[in-house]
Amino acid sequence: MEKWRATSNLRRSLKSILNRQLSTVSEFRYLNEKRSCQSSFNLIRDCKSLGQVNAIQHRCFSSASTLVQRNPSFSTLNSDDISYFKGLLGEKSVIQDEDRLETVNTDWMHKYKGSSKLLLLPRSTEEVAQILRYCNSRCLAVVPQGGNTGLVGGSVPVFDEVIVNVSSMKNIISFDKVSGILVCEAGCILENLISFLDNQGFIMPLDLGAKGSCQIGGNVSTNAGGLRLVRYGSLHENVLGLEAVLANGDVLDMLGTLRKDNTGYDLKHLFIGSEGSLGIVTKVSILTPPKLSSVNIAFLACNDYSSCQKLLMEAKRKLGEILSAFEFLDTEAMNLVLHQFDGVRNPLPASMHNFYILIETTGSDESYNREKLEAFLLSSMEDGLISDGVLAQDINQASSFWRIREGVPEALMKAGAVYKYDLSLPVEKMYDLVDDMRIRLGDLAKVVGYGHLGDGNLHLNVSAPEYDDKILEQIEPYVYEWTSKHRGSISAEHGLGLMKANKVYYSKSAETVQTMASIKKLLDPNGILNPYKVLPHSLNS
Amino acid sequence: MEKWRATSNLRRSLKSILNRQLSTVSEFRYLNEKRSCQSSFNLIRDCKSLGQVNAIQHRCFSSASTLVQRNPSFSTLNSDDISYFKGLLGEKSVIQDEDRLETVNTDWMHKYKGSSKLLLLPRSTEEVAQILRYCNSRCLAVVPQGGNTGLVGGSVPVFDEVIVNVSSMKNIISFDKVSGILVCEAGCILENLISFLDNQGFIMPLDLGAKGSCQIGGNVSTNAGGLRLVRYGSLHENVLGLEAVLANGDVLDMLGTLRKDNTGYDLKHLFIGSEGSLGIVTKVSILTPPKLSSVNIAFLACNDYSSCQKLLMEAKRKLGEILSAFEFLDTEAMNLVLHQFDGVRNPLPASMHNFYILIETTGSDESYNREKLEAFLLSSMEDGLISDGVLAQDINQASSFWRIREGVPEALMKAGAVYKYDLSLPVEKMYDLVDDMRIRLGDLAKVVGYGHLGDGNLHLNVSAPEYDDKILEQIEPYVYEWTSKHRGSISAEHGLGLMKANKVYYSKSAETVQTMASIKKLLDPNGILNPYKVLPHSLNS
Repeated sequence: MEKWRATSNLRRSLKSILNRQLSTVSEFRYLNEKRSCQSSFNLIRDCKSLGQVNAIQHRCFSSASTLVQRNPSFSTLNSDDISYFKGLLGEKSVIQDEDRLETVNTDWMHKYKGSSKLLLLPRSTEEVAQILRYCNSRCLAVVPQGGNTGLVGGSVPVFDEVIVNVSSMKNIISFDKVSGILVCEAGCILENLISFLDNQGFIMPLDLGAKGSCQIGGNVSTNAGGLRLVRYGSLHENVLGLEAVLANGDVLDMLGTLRKDNTGYDLKHLFIGSEGSLGIVTKVSILTPPKLSSVNIAFLACNDYSSCQKLLMEAKRKLGEILSAFEFLDTEAMNLVLHQFDGVRNPLPASMHNFYILIETTGSDESYNREKLEAFLLSSMEDGLISDGVLAQDINQASSFWRIREGVPEALMKAGAVYKYDLSLPVEKMYDLVDDMRIRLGDLAKVVGYGHLGDGNLHLNVSAPEYDDKILEQIEPYVYEWTSKHRGSISAEHGLGLMKANKVYYSKSAETVQTMASIKKLLDPNGILNPYKVLPHSLNS
Repeated sequence: MEKWRATSNLRRSLKSILNRQLSTVSEFRYLNEKRSCQSSFNLIRDCKSLGQVNAIQHRCFSSASTLVQRNPSFSTLNSDDISYFKGLLGEKSVIQDEDRLETVNTDWMHKYKGSSKLLLLPRSTEEVAQILRYCNSRCLAVVPQGGNTGLVGGSVPVFDEVIVNVSSMKNIISFDKVSGILVCEAGCILENLISFLDNQGFIMPLDLGAKGSCQIGGNVSTNAGGLRLVRYGSLHENVLGLEAVLANGDVLDMLGTLRKDNTGYDLKHLFIGSEGSLGIVTKVSILTPPKLSSVNIAFLACNDYSSCQKLLMEAKRKLGEILSAFEFLDTEAMNLVLHQFDGVRNPLPASMHNFYILIETTGSDESYNREKLEAFLLSSMEDGLISDGVLAQDINQASSFWRIREGVPEALMKAGAVYKYDLSLPVEKMYDLVDDMRIRLGDLAKVVGYGHLGDGNLHLNVSAPEYDDKILEQIEPYVYEWTSKHRGSISAEHGLGLMKANKVYYSKSAETVQTMASIKKLLDPNGILNPYKVLPHSLNS
């Protein structure tokens, strides 16, 4: 038992943890501003006007080349359009300023860049409806944009699409303290909702690194996953209702606030995760869990992946109802974090281990939950599943454990070129892919594995000093084929966007993709909503 | 503290509780065989052949009259069709026997009856596909039927539709003990899956009174709710994937086994709760939680509905992660149960109370969970929320508490005529409807309120010695209008079926219903799948 260096007197407030996560995010958000896909960027910068180049070659570090043609059936913006929008929204909500357009044309990793000449900021569902009605009649393509924190090029224009951002729609409409049901407009920033709920004694069922910027409408449209999914489930469960505007301006009011409603097809699910390609989400109703006061965090080491798996199984059974995170990183990931950040120390410094696990429990009783976690850790150590471990004894230690796990993406970006893959795989197969990639790449690059083990979600990253087509050739399509062979998902939580639109067949059958395309055609016959994304380009135009 | 008559030494196995529930169901299942909508039945019995009557007047006790016309574009079965099916499936799977057809033409409440001449029992997805491909080409209407335990006439033919039942497809395909993911064929009976999982140390995330008969494919197609929803969520969360056959015979393989998969539109949700009107579910992949050993049950009394609400709020916060049921019944419901069943006693006999609450907790540690529940009950009593209460001290007492709650529907059926409504309403408004109905009905009938308070699901029942149109006129459309006004759902868990197809507008906007109809038309252009159900008849043909 002396291995466990902490026992009692630990009180952590969720609020403090949230604040910590925010500062981590802010750092992360801006550190990478200067790092980008240079080849892509240079090419994009050469496209001064749409007239010059109608096909853009996106050569990006985490994807094979993608050739996209502008859909010739789309109109181009003219002065009458601008006049119409100014009449509808007022001058201030019709943005043509070049600096502001530069920002909203570019994704936050600086990986994708469009050439939109117009950003619209509607303040109501009716304004969104009128914008879309007009764009549909004029055949003007539209990109719905939230906080623009996506990683797959889904939230920025590919060419000259009109950008519609509902950031002005940020009202909380209602909150019911008995049921925990929050109704709000789609432009609410996730962190603001978290703060609002914190004062009410509730939490959001989702939490993301990007919380300081991302909007709830965007979260819903992309079916954002994040850190709390293992405990509170996905947005398909927690979103009770929504309001969406279709491409033709029709408003679908599905803003129910009920846990149970079996009155026909539950169409809201079509809009959860369709990345704005079927409609623009304008309001959301969401079930929020009560805030529980006791949070405990342990940082553990395992000798092999098999032990990680067994530990997960045991944790689900023995910690059951209090388990709120089960994250893992391998020794390569740990080394990167230790190497890239001066202030970060290995909590288990005696020797390097092959795998590290972060377990978080959340419950309503501090002393009991602590005891329970300690008993679980002791028995897991006796069973040989854990080779070493430490239990956070204060908020600083808890933060430092999370900092290691959350620091991996940042460390990867600091280390040089990085090829990122977000995969769902059966847990027992997951790490085989990392091993296989190491064999394939040899000395060419480092392969790093980490992610949400509790959800079967692997973040596979390949790190090298510089981008190199030789490396990419070794990774793709091998990674996608491997994932497909094991019935995994080529996008666990990031979505398809532009980056993986043509790769959907690796995870979905031809009949399913065809049905997706039919539904797209039904709801958006002119294809104006977020074109070139989600569906393969052969079916998208 | 002396109010609490039980403290320790209580070990209950989930298995015992499940066995108890089964026997309750079996009784319930057959007790009502002779009770039915006589007027409807007499009318139906007069329809000797389809040729005689093409419009059936369903006069049923819980619904206003519904006039349905047979869709004239459907073909009628001929000998070539029978030969085709015998060639495809073999003689034994093509059922024309009158007795067997009588059973599958009638719903289990004997409220709806069709006149199908053919039951088909495919053994594989490919056979289902070939059946539908043929029926679609011949324009033969089809009813997908599972265990036929529905309450809204969704699983029986309205006229001469061909019945397709996948009960022969009952294999468990795989079970992964690390992730708890079960993959099985759609014909598996829920109770068999529960038993299978029990041996593996897992449970199904749903549990229903009808578990001994209902099939998992039917559960998924109707988005069955039940007793565990408050803890484990709905099937939209727990069903990870499914395989469905469309009306034209195309097979959509969406049988993923991943917790997270953001690769385009998540079409499986269209088939969850669409009551077989968009496709026949043939395989299901479902996330199952580990079995936890500690179950505690308390039976409590509250003086008023406001206390029930506050108790729910407190339970969510203080019992948080271990709360697994929060059910309520009012004094009318309790009186009915006590009156109708000789063996049932009020666990709180000192005086009659206005409301009774059943709280169940499920967790991984017996002594702790027990202590936690006791502390919660004590503080709730000190706060005046609970006026009396008892904690089950053995399996018999636990069973007797559940027997009261689960006995309400049976007691209602024994008491005479019953008008049943399954509503979702905001918790704070829910009981106002019961009070309003009592004022409206006066001495005409008794109004009984009970249900899943934790999910905002009210079972509103009106009990009278005999069916009487005067009573029905007082109830409908008032109940639906009231529910609609408060943005409730006119069907929390039972679905729309035939009974409420025309009532969907009370819970869904015209634009949403129109979009539902468009999706139906897209996936089933001839409308052969479960016609006359789910969508309003004006849009259904």
